[in-house]
Amino acid sequence: MAKKLQYFNINGLGESIRYMLHYGGHKFEDIRYELKDWPIQSVKDSLPYGQLPLYEEGGKTLNQSLAIARYVASQSQLLPSDLWQQAVLDAVVHNIYDFWNKNKIAEYIRGDAETKAALKKQTFEEHIPFYFPRFEKELKTNKGHFAGKLTWADFILVGMIETANLFYGENIETNYPTIAALVKTIQNLPKVKEYIATRNPYTFK
Amino acid sequence: MAKKLQYFNINGLGESIRYMLHYGGHKFEDIRYELKDWPIQSVKDSLPYGQLPLYEEGGKTLNQSLAIARYVASQSQLLPSDLWQQAVLDAVVHNIYDFWNKNKIAEYIRGDAETKAALKKQTFEEHIPFYFPRFEKELKTNKGHFAGKLTWADFILVGMIETANLFYGENIETNYPTIAALVKTIQNLPKVKEYIATRNPYTFK
Repeated sequence: MAKKLQYFNINGLGESIRYMLHYGGHKFEDIRYELKDWPIQSVKDSLPYGQLPLYEEGGKTLNQSLAIARYVASQSQLLPSDLWQQAVLDAVVHNIYDFWNKNKIAEYIRGDAETKAALKKQTFEEHIPFYFPRFEKELKTNKGHFAGKLTWADFILVGMIETANLFYGENIETNYPTIAALVKTIQNLPKVKEYIATRNPYTFK
Repeated sequence: MAKKLQYFNINGLGESIRYMLHYGGHKFEDIRYELKDWPIQSVKDSLPYGQLPLYEEGGKTLNQSLAIARYVASQSQLLPSDLWQQAVLDAVVHNIYDFWNKNKIAEYIRGDAETKAALKKQTFEEHIPFYFPRFEKELKTNKGHFAGKLTWADFILVGMIETANLFYGENIETNYPTIAALVKTIQNLPKVKEYIATRNPYTFK
């Protein structure tokens, strides 16, 4: 079945999906749009809810980054079979997205220098100190992964951290050794490493 | 295994979970806090991310409304076994939550009369006209349910509509006959109907 992922030419909500597709050894068409060109009206109108990412497989489409990520995880041996454990990981990814949404990154992208500085300050003084010790603790008590072994929740956290690092020009995981180790683990998975080496580096100005 | 749900004494993000627990015939402790008393610091401090709802089963806890709802659905025969179909329903519930989040209901609850009027206007002129024709179409092409038969996504939509109706004092589904029919279908499921008849009506002033 032909697989296709449409997203921006940036990490954002799409990179953890790309990582998992590569990790699982899936061939897929990696279609990318430049943020600066968005909205491309013809593309936007073709999206069921006007938003990227959109995933296609066998002629059927799926929107919503977490729905796509969870499905790709199920096809890449990154989703445990136990239903309670699946639910715990669902909670983890929603907690990660809560952190992400508090960053108001759309406002940050569009903002002037003053807005950017204020939003960044809030992220570093409020949101990271609230969420990251909790993520660190969950990882630490589970052998460095959210579920005691590699799962999709690990990919989602690393995807969000890499995106935050791109936008803020920092390494937000620095003071959290277990999180920092997980970032390295994911980036060094052989097929992920290979993919990272072949793609162009992302930029944000 | 003893089951317990902690949430506010309101529909909100908790009612579709309560409906599914009743629908599935599960006995559970239905713990409720009054919105006006919130935050109750001792309760808030006991929550892993400071937020309700929190679900407990066999001494283990789970946060995040969608993680809880999906798990309860899996225990109440409201989750299809096909992984693609599961993913399609995941996308549906995220689309419903996108609609919900655009309503900025926390701002609405706290707002003065002018703020309330402006937010309500935006919901009725922008968000409902964008999302509801899409939901209506998805339901209509699938025999009145999001997946051709009753699933958790139907409960999530009805839970959000009932909540919006409580806050806005309207019936936001009126102009969408397939959505309106689904609301009635869920409310008339025997065990749900029985539960609704025994609980106190919700109020918002």
